[in-house]
Amino acid sequence: MNARNDVQVSVLGLGAMGSALAGALVRGGCATTVWNRSPGKADELVAQSARVVADAGDAVRAGEVVIVCLLDHASVREVLDPLAGELAGRSVVNVTTTSPEQSRELAAGAGIAYLDGGIMAVPHMIGEPGASILYSGSGDVFDQYKPLLDLFGDSAYFGTDAGLASLYDLALLAGMYVMFAGFLHGVAMVAPAGVKAGDFAARAAPWLSAMTGALEGFAKVIDGGDYTVAGQQSLHFSDLGDLLAATSEQGISTEVVDMVQRLIRRQIDAGHGEEGFARIIESIRQQPD
Amino acid sequence: MNARNDVQVSVLGLGAMGSALAGALVRGGCATTVWNRSPGKADELVAQSARVVADAGDAVRAGEVVIVCLLDHASVREVLDPLAGELAGRSVVNVTTTSPEQSRELAAGAGIAYLDGGIMAVPHMIGEPGASILYSGSGDVFDQYKPLLDLFGDSAYFGTDAGLASLYDLALLAGMYVMFAGFLHGVAMVAPAGVKAGDFAARAAPWLSAMTGALEGFAKVIDGGDYTVAGQQSLHFSDLGDLLAATSEQGISTEVVDMVQRLIRRQIDAGHGEEGFARIIESIRQQPD
Repeated sequence: MNARNDVQVSVLGLGAMGSALAGALVRGGCATTVWNRSPGKADELVAQSARVVADAGDAVRAGEVVIVCLLDHASVREVLDPLAGELAGRSVVNVTTTSPEQSRELAAGAGIAYLDGGIMAVPHMIGEPGASILYSGSGDVFDQYKPLLDLFGDSAYFGTDAGLASLYDLALLAGMYVMFAGFLHGVAMVAPAGVKAGDFAARAAPWLSAMTGALEGFAKVIDGGDYTVAGQQSLHFSDLGDLLAATSEQGISTEVVDMVQRLIRRQIDAGHGEEGFARIIESIRQQPD
Repeated sequence: MNARNDVQVSVLGLGAMGSALAGALVRGGCATTVWNRSPGKADELVAQSARVVADAGDAVRAGEVVIVCLLDHASVREVLDPLAGELAGRSVVNVTTTSPEQSRELAAGAGIAYLDGGIMAVPHMIGEPGASILYSGSGDVFDQYKPLLDLFGDSAYFGTDAGLASLYDLALLAGMYVMFAGFLHGVAMVAPAGVKAGDFAARAAPWLSAMTGALEGFAKVIDGGDYTVAGQQSLHFSDLGDLLAATSEQGISTEVVDMVQRLIRRQIDAGHGEEGFARIIESIRQQPD
């Protein structure tokens, strides 16, 4: 991308992620104004030619597009609500982690062209290969500022529902946290036998990475709507009784694996034991009574 | 590896995995005798020069090393117990999925040189890159037959405790099943917004694969024994309240994510909220009252 000196960008919030985003903009040649509630966070950015202002209103007035990266939804409302007048007619790209409902609420704000973003990366990955940012909301804002958004990482647009990027973001984060818990369960299982966490991680990381290869197959079964198609591991075969017994023998909590076993058992108990493992999504889809 | 016509191998059990193992042996040039409880499973192997026998005792007597790949521990005992006399002096490699205790029980059988194996692969991966088999028990059996075991995949030896390979196997499987549940939770979260499972999987698979890069860091903290070292995401920051609220808003069960949140909350409630996420292993290590 060429330098974007013609675009005036402002960044609200200079935590680790906001600073990383502002840094990518500055390095990409954008005229960047930054603001943070507490001072002293902008020194490095200013050295790279960003302009720092002490007042959020000044930051908003300086940018045709305003990137918002604050702590949470409440912080966003606290900073943006008093500036509704200044925001009218401008574009807002909010990458603060919010719920889908909160994103939709912000998108409904009068006169703002609103794009919501979910960042699938940690700060040091911003602007590097592997960083991916999911957007939804205003397609005009996405199209107009895509070259600028691409400075952060791979930009994907999911449609006009401003809540969808947040929803996707949260769904991917859910998968990540649950995977981490599963890994830590494994570490706790082998630890009593004297296995170091580092040795287990060296096997578990490539193993779990390889097993993500199964996800597409589960998805195909789910989208097809038929859990009886051939070639699947059955729920009966997936019963985790032996795994739970071995967990107990190690003297650790069974609750991590119990969670999966409950999902499996509900489907077996409903008479679906011969169907494929992907069917446990039916246990998740229904809120228990 | 060169042909191993000098090694007489027998395989007990011709399910999908046993057949795959026998096929790899035959293709590797081993003189292979196969047996299955129900007939008709060996036709393809016989066409490749395997010898099929109708009696498990005949199979044992034909092999200096006997690969056992049956349904479960009970099947192994049922087949091997009556053959104790024939097994004495031979080497047994049992790759049936068993608990660590069951593996140790088999290893204690009189006069058998016993090696236990945990197969980290699905049948079609046997003999292909990516297949990995974990062994523990008799180091003599492992050393003597390693060229043969390498026909199945990457062979790793974990020491003389016959239960350790099973334990490792189960710990890795636990991580896999839990990861699958986390993925399916994500699919269930985005489905009400009209997102196809296949579209979600196309993002979730590389995302989760990339996130396995964090496991080594968690392991380092755990092995170091200090959850306060710098650079970690704190437990307070990891609170999953927003994720749970968004899950409920989608009208689906919260139980998959609740499992992680409980582990987090127990550590926060015990006063460790400022410490790193890896500390949730302490919630797993203790069986709840």
